[in-house]
Amino acid sequence: MTPEQNLVASAVNAWNVNVERADKLFSGLSEAQLLNEVAPGKNRLIYLWGHLIAVHDAMRPLLGLGQKLHPELEAVFLTEPDKAVPQLPSSAQLKHHWDEVNGSLQAGFGNWAASDWTQKHTPVSEEDFATNPLRNRLSILLSRTSHIAYHLGQGALAPK
Amino acid sequence: MTPEQNLVASAVNAWNVNVERADKLFSGLSEAQLLNEVAPGKNRLIYLWGHLIAVHDAMRPLLGLGQKLHPELEAVFLTEPDKAVPQLPSSAQLKHHWDEVNGSLQAGFGNWAASDWTQKHTPVSEEDFATNPLRNRLSILLSRTSHIAYHLGQGALAPK
Repeated sequence: MTPEQNLVASAVNAWNVNVERADKLFSGLSEAQLLNEVAPGKNRLIYLWGHLIAVHDAMRPLLGLGQKLHPELEAVFLTEPDKAVPQLPSSAQLKHHWDEVNGSLQAGFGNWAASDWTQKHTPVSEEDFATNPLRNRLSILLSRTSHIAYHLGQGALAPK
Repeated sequence: MTPEQNLVASAVNAWNVNVERADKLFSGLSEAQLLNEVAPGKNRLIYLWGHLIAVHDAMRPLLGLGQKLHPELEAVFLTEPDKAVPQLPSSAQLKHHWDEVNGSLQAGFGNWAASDWTQKHTPVSEEDFATNPLRNRLSILLSRTSHIAYHLGQGALAPK
């Protein structure tokens, strides 16, 4: 393993660890438990789960891995706040989307060399990327890894 | 910038972004606000702040950057849960420790080449590291970056 490969593998591992933690948190909850708020008046667990799926699905175009698989989740879990949309997907549907979206990302990552990670992410112009070479695909992965952890911290507060 | 340097700089940047977010959250709070719980019956903001300082201070020996600067924080913010220790440091003391500990880490990171990041972290044996080369210093940085984000998510729920 070259140093470059080692650095990338460490970052993908940190992503996988957080995805697995979120899977363990959300997949194990009943439909009733998913309706618990993480704290009084705050987001419900089901919203956080759908929100993570929508954000991860949006990583596909950001990273040049294809279109979103479930663009319909954007309105429900990104544009609108929790409780604005009366009918949310079921736990089984969310689990299916979650595995599908994360699986598609992991498959994409598995095909990349270390040099693919230092490429610019899709929306950045060549000019901006020349000025700031940290606007790369790895930075997207790292910020989305922190994003999972952010909501895992909230999910841990929810009543059991 | 070589690909290796770019990958490392991206990870250090993700760390810095989270440290700055935490600084913005905690440094701006009054002594009274720091005593707010993030949710009813959960940790207080002051505990989360001290906890992050103690965890970051422990990164110094983990990464081979020296001894802890404030080993006295371990009992208060790591070993003991919140509210077990009656007398906590003041906001001004915590801000001083926070800047000192994070500054010492950033100074250390600034001296490292990319190849320093793929070295094993201190407690791992050579044998274990040969089996799992991801038990390196970068993985410590990435997991502690997620750790900040985890508690930032909780801090965001606290009453203002």
